[in-house]
Amino acid sequence: MNDASSEDVFQNLISSNDTFLFDCDGVLWKGAKAVPGAAAVVNFLENLGKQVIFVTNNSTKSRDKYVDKLSSLGYPSDKEKIFGTAYTSALYLKHIAKIDGKVYLIGNESMGEELDNVGIKHFGIGPDNVATSLDYDDIKRCKLDEDVNAVLVGFDGHISFSKLVRAGSYLRNPNCLFLATNSDARLPLGDCKHVVPGTGVMVASVCTVAAREPDVWCGKPGKFMFECIQKTIDINPDRAIMIGDNTKTDIVFGKQNSLKTLLVFSGVSSRDSVNSILESSDPALKEQVPDYVLPSLGDWAEFCS
Amino acid sequence: MNDASSEDVFQNLISSNDTFLFDCDGVLWKGAKAVPGAAAVVNFLENLGKQVIFVTNNSTKSRDKYVDKLSSLGYPSDKEKIFGTAYTSALYLKHIAKIDGKVYLIGNESMGEELDNVGIKHFGIGPDNVATSLDYDDIKRCKLDEDVNAVLVGFDGHISFSKLVRAGSYLRNPNCLFLATNSDARLPLGDCKHVVPGTGVMVASVCTVAAREPDVWCGKPGKFMFECIQKTIDINPDRAIMIGDNTKTDIVFGKQNSLKTLLVFSGVSSRDSVNSILESSDPALKEQVPDYVLPSLGDWAEFCS
Repeated sequence: MNDASSEDVFQNLISSNDTFLFDCDGVLWKGAKAVPGAAAVVNFLENLGKQVIFVTNNSTKSRDKYVDKLSSLGYPSDKEKIFGTAYTSALYLKHIAKIDGKVYLIGNESMGEELDNVGIKHFGIGPDNVATSLDYDDIKRCKLDEDVNAVLVGFDGHISFSKLVRAGSYLRNPNCLFLATNSDARLPLGDCKHVVPGTGVMVASVCTVAAREPDVWCGKPGKFMFECIQKTIDINPDRAIMIGDNTKTDIVFGKQNSLKTLLVFSGVSSRDSVNSILESSDPALKEQVPDYVLPSLGDWAEFCS
Repeated sequence: MNDASSEDVFQNLISSNDTFLFDCDGVLWKGAKAVPGAAAVVNFLENLGKQVIFVTNNSTKSRDKYVDKLSSLGYPSDKEKIFGTAYTSALYLKHIAKIDGKVYLIGNESMGEELDNVGIKHFGIGPDNVATSLDYDDIKRCKLDEDVNAVLVGFDGHISFSKLVRAGSYLRNPNCLFLATNSDARLPLGDCKHVVPGTGVMVASVCTVAAREPDVWCGKPGKFMFECIQKTIDINPDRAIMIGDNTKTDIVFGKQNSLKTLLVFSGVSSRDSVNSILESSDPALKEQVPDYVLPSLGDWAEFCS
């Protein structure tokens, strides 16, 4: 594991890579604020003619909305270079699973938008508090739709008991496909004293009630995310690097796809957590060790003028 | 593992036990309906002078409410013989943890009633949908109370994103105690085509966001539940039997406390699930193998006239 803070290492990474894959939350921004200096670095790479790709597990934005957010924070891009889990889960359901019934969605409007874009029928977005007790008559108010053949779980700020009744009930059928976007347990939200639950919390609750693990993960480190990228973008893994803030998702994703990996400490994973991984004797954790570490992407800004 | 369906085994269990500990959901009732014949068996044991105790992980009733439900379904009892997790979690917070601040409760009115009974300050009961998005300004609306020094998680039909923000935020402090009532993932609710999420679903979501396991489990198979019973009731484990429907909670609880164990198939655990345990080479599963099995407690009713 190498420190990437020096200009030498920075120049070396530029000359040895044609493609830079960036995670977003915790790397480019935290909540509504850009990570200071990060935009200068990304734009510098674009101006050098490098291929810049955005790869995010966050399902709360469609590709169109990511174009807007990236642009508003200083990262102009176009949607062909943006891979979010709202988009990849819609691709999976349409082209791989070829779902012909309905999808029960524990998710959000952006996931619905991407499903609509590929013509997948879905329901479940928004508040659902039909049942709130263990009373049989109350539970029965959660009417079940017999035409559901997939449950998709992404970020849902309206997660509720009723939604868990429905997801558990649909997934009792072993032929009902169970898709999840990602397992991130927390979101990095800047100087926030609150802990912010990520999609991993919603997925854990559905796994528990359904007594099943997801059949497919549509985000990092799942392999489908890289397949989606490769389908439309030509990447030479030998000359590509994945830059992220989370060892479990970004670094494992990079390693599993033979990319170089760089971890920044501006988001989820801390230097302490990496040290714990290095000291662990658990071989499974080795996949989480990045090739390079850097406190923040913005630390490179001084080399980009 | 012995079949307990015959009158010989029934008579043998009566003569060799003075104390019968009964789980409730899935053994005595399913939802609002009594298991047919079960009340005749329990009353027969009472009339023989056996000590009958009710031990339930279900936190949605206070002791007083259990007296009412037991009585309405044909099991007259008094509250000194009823041990539910709303009650035992209040005892733990009062007498063991000796909490002097406030408890943040992901739970229900009955848990609040038991906390009130012992003078523990708490808040959190009822709907809480202050924040529903990843927007920083939205998250900040979940005001945090600095006087919280324990988070207690039981059954909460109003589980929500805001509640998970709060629980995760309080539990970021390693000195904040984390209590859970039980890990049951589903409730047995009779002829219901719905899957009904149990407290284990709420606990799993809090564990995920908090990146912590509970410090204490207040229900079965945790040891505190048996300590609560022993404090007021004299039990000779050599002459006592635990009767339940869940191998993971009831049977493990019985074995860990040196009681005989009987599993009924009228609730959570099926004969197939017990066979899987028997066939498994995982030594940890051996604790889940009951001494006796019986399709339903009501099967003994014919021997009770």
